[in-house]
Amino acid sequence: MEKRYDYHSLLQFTKNIFIKTGFNETDAQTASMNLLAADLRGVDSHGVARLSGYVRLCETGRINPQSKPSIIHETASTATVDGNAGSGLVIASFAMGVAINKAITSGTGWVCVQNSSHFGIAGIHAMMALPHDMIGIAMTNASPLVAPTFSSERMLGTNPIAVAIPAGEEPAFIADFATTTAANGKLEILQRKKMPVPNGWVQTKEGLPSNNASELKSGGALLPLGGDREHGSHKGFMLGSIVDIFSGVLSGANYGPFVPPFPVYLNMPAFMPGKGIGHFFGALRTDAFRPSTEFKKEMDNWIRIFKNAKAIDEKVPVIIPGEPERELENERRITGIPLSKEVIDDLQMLGDKFGFILQ
Amino acid sequence: MEKRYDYHSLLQFTKNIFIKTGFNETDAQTASMNLLAADLRGVDSHGVARLSGYVRLCETGRINPQSKPSIIHETASTATVDGNAGSGLVIASFAMGVAINKAITSGTGWVCVQNSSHFGIAGIHAMMALPHDMIGIAMTNASPLVAPTFSSERMLGTNPIAVAIPAGEEPAFIADFATTTAANGKLEILQRKKMPVPNGWVQTKEGLPSNNASELKSGGALLPLGGDREHGSHKGFMLGSIVDIFSGVLSGANYGPFVPPFPVYLNMPAFMPGKGIGHFFGALRTDAFRPSTEFKKEMDNWIRIFKNAKAIDEKVPVIIPGEPERELENERRITGIPLSKEVIDDLQMLGDKFGFILQ
Repeated sequence: MEKRYDYHSLLQFTKNIFIKTGFNETDAQTASMNLLAADLRGVDSHGVARLSGYVRLCETGRINPQSKPSIIHETASTATVDGNAGSGLVIASFAMGVAINKAITSGTGWVCVQNSSHFGIAGIHAMMALPHDMIGIAMTNASPLVAPTFSSERMLGTNPIAVAIPAGEEPAFIADFATTTAANGKLEILQRKKMPVPNGWVQTKEGLPSNNASELKSGGALLPLGGDREHGSHKGFMLGSIVDIFSGVLSGANYGPFVPPFPVYLNMPAFMPGKGIGHFFGALRTDAFRPSTEFKKEMDNWIRIFKNAKAIDEKVPVIIPGEPERELENERRITGIPLSKEVIDDLQMLGDKFGFILQ
Repeated sequence: MEKRYDYHSLLQFTKNIFIKTGFNETDAQTASMNLLAADLRGVDSHGVARLSGYVRLCETGRINPQSKPSIIHETASTATVDGNAGSGLVIASFAMGVAINKAITSGTGWVCVQNSSHFGIAGIHAMMALPHDMIGIAMTNASPLVAPTFSSERMLGTNPIAVAIPAGEEPAFIADFATTTAANGKLEILQRKKMPVPNGWVQTKEGLPSNNASELKSGGALLPLGGDREHGSHKGFMLGSIVDIFSGVLSGANYGPFVPPFPVYLNMPAFMPGKGIGHFFGALRTDAFRPSTEFKKEMDNWIRIFKNAKAIDEKVPVIIPGEPERELENERRITGIPLSKEVIDDLQMLGDKFGFILQ
């Protein structure tokens, strides 16, 4: 029961809803484009499926759609941004813009953000650097769902890392991944299909191995990339921790188990050492290291060499990071964005409430 | 047949050998300390066990112990260093020093290095930032032993990432890990014990799953962190790729399958798009983001909270990155560094050759 919706109609619908929720025209446009980037690129769990969640956060005052982010501390190559409890979808673009400006003058720019909220997919923010011939980096902490190696307690978010690297003739290299074995979205897909999850994705409340896709609902946890100690889960734990420290501790946001949850029905943590959710962004001018033309020529070569690495099964070639998402985006811009019945119902309820028709 | 050697005696012995090989006094000291940091911290495969390998690289002219690294390109926050075919053990300290100086003036410093060679363990270079209240980052590419997801070809090195983060009262957070499921050193241990390796560590020459610890000798490959696609190996592949691009493509070094091998008996690649091996270093002043006292206070809290996260087995608590290595270092500085019979024989041969006694 899936139906496709034209990207531009869906963007306009989303923008209208954001404006009715209190965003100004510009911020509504930014938030909508960042949100729908997830739908275009196939990260369906992070796109319009979350629109009603964002609206509820605004309505209950956890997000203030009218506040503006501000720089509260800076050096030649760094800045700390206070999101002032606004929407992460807007704050992230602002902060990445600051990083890019710092890079123009100082070679690189590094911006951490406190007092923000969920910013959608990390990749779209890192990609802002590409037209400037810069490498872009984006990461964020998130609500605790992940247990450290040897622990049964949910201490970290899925804490994604995105790195976008420009090339010349080849499309850019765009890595964007959760630091867990599997992102929560993949778990939800298997849950809906009532299928088990592979070993190493989740554990029970007591910390025992599990193949139950609904384990999180019973107090279980997602596992760091690697799954268990023998398969390197301590490395996934380190990666998630680094993202948490850069995003939360460096910025003055909350960190670890204190990161506020996305769903509005979940209570805020009793103790909060910082403000809101934290992000971290970076921009590196490629010509701060070597001439950009040289860099892009070698990057093209890198991509071609890896793409043509000997395949185990010749029908399944090596995937360059960003390739599947780009192909999906090209397709969905033409054929539309597929939405499930649940998401359509949810959006139609929003439409009814604010006087817009989903079409 | 293991014997322990006093750290300072071993350091002096190593320094003497390096001087005889052509290093000046200062560089020999730096190289020896960086090399023995591996032995102190328990990464035995990367320490004095490799001394004869470094000597051979110098003797055959692949490493020039007398050359000096130089800055060939720079901006306020970045530099590109030409290692001039010197030893990575010396070049890394120079480059990290440049990163730290850039950070003093610009908030952060980022240095990529071309035309270098193996630099020992990444962690020790990242740790250089700690006394300056800075976060340190170090990474390097390495000889190709790792197959990308879906490929049977060795395209990447174990490409480690190290991140050292200062705390206040607590010891620093020090992550240092290969971007593969298991480092090559762990494979070698199981090989010596004639034991199988777990699933997800290696694959055969044809790309089939294997539990053979000697698989690399038959043309097999190490696997990226995650092991296979279902368990997130594409994420390990992305991490290894990012390290390769930052270290190799950004700097003008070799990358991917073109990185020159460490063992002197292996031929150099026929085609080499760059110069030598590449590294990437970063230094971030914590007070470029928020007052250092605040940062360190929250970092202490982060460490304590994670250390006390509910353990699955109360006898096995959560490990803070860097903790086991620090404990081992404290112990080995007192009780000495354990060396195997093979390593002792190897060092004694070097001693005989150059007129020094291993004691």
